[in-house]
Amino acid sequence: MRATTIHAPRDIRLSEVADPTIEKPTDAIVKVTSACICGSDLWPFRGENDITPGDTIGHECIGVVEEVGADVRDVRPGDFVVVPFDHCDNTCAHCRAGMQSACVELSMTSSGQGQYARVGHADGSLVKVPDLGASGPDAAMVPHLVALSDVMPTGWHAAVAARVQPGGTTVVVGDGAVGLCGVLAAAQMGSEKVVLMSRHEPRQEIGRAFGATHVVAERGREAAAAVKEITGGVGADAVLECVGTDQAMGTAFAVARPGATVGFVGVPHGVQLPVGRMFQKNVGLAGGMAPVREYLPHLLDLVLAGTIEPGRVFDLTLPLDEVAEGYRAMDERRAVKVLLDVDGSLGA
Amino acid sequence: MRATTIHAPRDIRLSEVADPTIEKPTDAIVKVTSACICGSDLWPFRGENDITPGDTIGHECIGVVEEVGADVRDVRPGDFVVVPFDHCDNTCAHCRAGMQSACVELSMTSSGQGQYARVGHADGSLVKVPDLGASGPDAAMVPHLVALSDVMPTGWHAAVAARVQPGGTTVVVGDGAVGLCGVLAAAQMGSEKVVLMSRHEPRQEIGRAFGATHVVAERGREAAAAVKEITGGVGADAVLECVGTDQAMGTAFAVARPGATVGFVGVPHGVQLPVGRMFQKNVGLAGGMAPVREYLPHLLDLVLAGTIEPGRVFDLTLPLDEVAEGYRAMDERRAVKVLLDVDGSLGA
Repeated sequence: MRATTIHAPRDIRLSEVADPTIEKPTDAIVKVTSACICGSDLWPFRGENDITPGDTIGHECIGVVEEVGADVRDVRPGDFVVVPFDHCDNTCAHCRAGMQSACVELSMTSSGQGQYARVGHADGSLVKVPDLGASGPDAAMVPHLVALSDVMPTGWHAAVAARVQPGGTTVVVGDGAVGLCGVLAAAQMGSEKVVLMSRHEPRQEIGRAFGATHVVAERGREAAAAVKEITGGVGADAVLECVGTDQAMGTAFAVARPGATVGFVGVPHGVQLPVGRMFQKNVGLAGGMAPVREYLPHLLDLVLAGTIEPGRVFDLTLPLDEVAEGYRAMDERRAVKVLLDVDGSLGA
Repeated sequence: MRATTIHAPRDIRLSEVADPTIEKPTDAIVKVTSACICGSDLWPFRGENDITPGDTIGHECIGVVEEVGADVRDVRPGDFVVVPFDHCDNTCAHCRAGMQSACVELSMTSSGQGQYARVGHADGSLVKVPDLGASGPDAAMVPHLVALSDVMPTGWHAAVAARVQPGGTTVVVGDGAVGLCGVLAAAQMGSEKVVLMSRHEPRQEIGRAFGATHVVAERGREAAAAVKEITGGVGADAVLECVGTDQAMGTAFAVARPGATVGFVGVPHGVQLPVGRMFQKNVGLAGGMAPVREYLPHLLDLVLAGTIEPGRVFDLTLPLDEVAEGYRAMDERRAVKVLLDVDGSLGA
């Protein structure tokens, strides 16, 4: 099959690789129709994570079940599915507690930016999109469905971890696609004020469309001062840290009111947590890798009802052939997030 | 007045100092009847915190209101009160949100191990003990009341921060008086299993009396393995970190199940938070200085009803004259916690 591979920092290729196969009786193979590039794919692209040259890359996709292992019962070939990037059996103690990202059988999509992907524990992981004709979802619905494989549930997880409540003020640090989905999540959860920290006009615009009531372009001390003004001197009730750098984390703690929780979903890179300040201000931290399967059924309902349109984070659609350009566009912040038309159904 | 002062590491004295006076119209002066020594007093005693030679020390006490400022309305001279170590106006935004330890008017008891103490914002801070005769509380009740000025609300705060729920398993790291009160809090909140980490028989005994269902004497990896066995391989639903060292924090994260929260109330000394592990396991951290006033009315009700007996953490009672011996006894772990009979009413 054709799949995206990484060979060195900034060396992304579309390569011919072996098709994935059923390895365990609980596996499924999904024929990928659409996929996308994740902010976390940029860490190896930029050389900040280790790379095994020639590895496939990509973990966000949707598509059609092609083949299932002998023990798969609930999904069948031909089903159109959203593929959570983190696969889970959805039955272990951690899954039952809603923490499927710590499933004892955890595995990950590893060739999502390719024509086929293997999914572990298909029955526990995959969520069918109901009521579709033979041609699959409308092109207009595709971006929203792709967003459900990672970015939207990850923004949602940030808001859950930060314990966003109806009323009050939520601050979102990070105007990448995850941060923007965090804005959407906070607004859905009834946060009265949603403050997006962003200095980029196109991202501010998406943020406002997602429910941001305020945009703060300042950073560091000035940002904290701006949030203090918005909150009448009190600070934010909930803060979503959607970047993963030390600077972003520092800003998150600086804007939180005493007793608040910072929800974090950006893989931490070089973060030193300010434990003294956390203690002094009683500001907590919670989060991590999103349990996508936990949130997916509810979020799919919201998407199918037209209540949320998380696919608005995609501002560039490319054919799979041009995946390398997609990485460059995101790296250079020319695009917020890139949708990949894998099977040509989007006409990209 | 006579009050405890610190002059250098391990140099604790009972000294003659000036009586505290009303400085602001919202202040009160409390004549201290009983007090105690806090685990956090041992940090300066051991030279691990800065010392200003001659400063008074001690922040846990109860007593009788002696004098009030012109703006004090709710407490009157003669009232018998519990003095929260952290004084608050109980009206600012942080207080209204239950985070009185971040009150915009925050101050602290600074001569609690002395004959008189000044209390800021007396109306917001002090809680009267109701229905007492002229002679004050029974001697048997005194330890439980003294425990309400800090140690019991601090253990309670650890359990609140860790989000202890009915059912499930709580692990308490630290068998000092705060950790023991954390056991009592978790049991009160309905935790089904309460695991105390302790290798000291007298502390284990208090812990069991407070509701510990299991005692784990191991440390580090062995401790984590023991908790895993108790929890059927899953880990603890809530963890209370009641020490403040890096080792204790490491143990706390090691025993937490994915999605759990570590509640921490020990002032952190040399703690490096394992942010990567927190992310990977989705284990949160919350806590800090306890908002004593928030919990005090409820805890006082429980004490007066005989439902909880937090004063059982006191295993040594000394007259104020012997306060230096009290510090040594706690430093050398000869005593769990030392009660000070300041006015002689306990006959110590």
